[in-house]
Amino acid sequence: MRTLGIVGTGLIGGSVALACRERGIFDEFAGLDKDCSKLEIAIQLGVCDRPLTSGENLDAICVSVPTGSIASTIESLSTQFSADVPIFDVGSVKGSILKELHEVPENFVPSHPIAGSEKSGAHEARADLFNDSVCVITPSSGTNSRCVDRVKKIWEGIGARVIELSPETHDVSLGLTSHLPHLLSYAIVEMLSEENEIAHGLVGTGFKDFSRIAEGDARVWSDILSANAGVLAEQTDQLIEKLLEIVRLAQTDKRALSKRIDLVRSFRQSLYD
Amino acid sequence: MRTLGIVGTGLIGGSVALACRERGIFDEFAGLDKDCSKLEIAIQLGVCDRPLTSGENLDAICVSVPTGSIASTIESLSTQFSADVPIFDVGSVKGSILKELHEVPENFVPSHPIAGSEKSGAHEARADLFNDSVCVITPSSGTNSRCVDRVKKIWEGIGARVIELSPETHDVSLGLTSHLPHLLSYAIVEMLSEENEIAHGLVGTGFKDFSRIAEGDARVWSDILSANAGVLAEQTDQLIEKLLEIVRLAQTDKRALSKRIDLVRSFRQSLYD
Repeated sequence: MRTLGIVGTGLIGGSVALACRERGIFDEFAGLDKDCSKLEIAIQLGVCDRPLTSGENLDAICVSVPTGSIASTIESLSTQFSADVPIFDVGSVKGSILKELHEVPENFVPSHPIAGSEKSGAHEARADLFNDSVCVITPSSGTNSRCVDRVKKIWEGIGARVIELSPETHDVSLGLTSHLPHLLSYAIVEMLSEENEIAHGLVGTGFKDFSRIAEGDARVWSDILSANAGVLAEQTDQLIEKLLEIVRLAQTDKRALSKRIDLVRSFRQSLYD
Repeated sequence: MRTLGIVGTGLIGGSVALACRERGIFDEFAGLDKDCSKLEIAIQLGVCDRPLTSGENLDAICVSVPTGSIASTIESLSTQFSADVPIFDVGSVKGSILKELHEVPENFVPSHPIAGSEKSGAHEARADLFNDSVCVITPSSGTNSRCVDRVKKIWEGIGARVIELSPETHDVSLGLTSHLPHLLSYAIVEMLSEENEIAHGLVGTGFKDFSRIAEGDARVWSDILSANAGVLAEQTDQLIEKLLEIVRLAQTDKRALSKRIDLVRSFRQSLYD
């Protein structure tokens, strides 16, 4: 009987469980959640089979709690489970977790599956969430290579392509592709909320898609933005420069603006070809 | 035989034609396009029936050319067609068009259907594009009220709810719900294009939705941003204040950030309930 511990039984943890079950990577899923009602729901839904008990034999542990609680969760798990059980998280920021840990356990393989949605909760979990996705892992030279291999195989087994990066490269890249877009989406939606109701009625499908990410769980996202605040501040400054440049072109040189937009457009197309 | 002139036979003009044909609002569609090959395609596709000829009898004219060419197109049409034929445009900015016109024709009813997509061309035209959409019209006290009524009925006939606003209110509202989001999307996609290829591979579905609007036609969008550059500059300054505020919270007060995100989230939900 191969058992995976799922610590944090929400959308991502639940999806890891469903995907591993469907692919037969583990036979049993033992859940743990600070919020007992969430664990009950995950068990009722068949996402997890039973509660996880301290000290039991496990084959691996998936930590899928909000970013700000990952380090303390891993420290607590390290005292309860054997040091050769691979532990992996799913957090959206990597540097801050490693900094927060007093000692980085050898069996901890930092992971970030680039998959998810603005939804949350085990009832939104899907076995196909990681199909054709990318999962970044950021092991260090001290990480147990057997644990790295095992965690890699789990992610690959549920459909992800695994990329190994340094925590710093991960955080800068994700700052740009995820954290900064969230910040922008929040700012625009907040501006609109302060406008009169006429403007609220004038949102089309473009605004809808642009602002979908603003619906992500507030706790999860305040954790992420705070954990990557240094990178976010730098990238925001760079972005502001760009915004002012483009506005200047709109005011003074429509032709140059058109050329610039066309380059952006081609690049965007190439991303999703 | 009721004939609608379609000047500019792209996505929006083509969709007006298809929708009016389906609902039986006009019997015949006569097209005109600076780019002859585009008109040919629209006729081949059955979006338009035949080319529009100067001076002929029409029942209404839809001007669906890029924002920067609307004023000159209307001036040219005013010399070629009877002054009691309603003319309406579909431009995304209203104030600049009225300013550019040396004299605002009485039969011109400025319109902006809040519908569309990042696609372009008559082959993308759809009869249902305006279903459940909003169309803003910005007539002035001098506009012929018979023409206003006629144009209102056309938009309502093809599924839009018509709202009457001042050109200024329209441009401020759309600045926020459409032009500023486009600017942000361009800036982020451009920043990503300047990063290394590792980051290019780390774009998830959130980034995809956020950046979809960056794929709109460059000529169309450079026209729009330029036409509304004054509003855009002001709103960009307001946005920058907000971005810096939120980043400051990420650096110093995660709790306050979480509360702020949660309010944004609730407002976003209320928009699309």
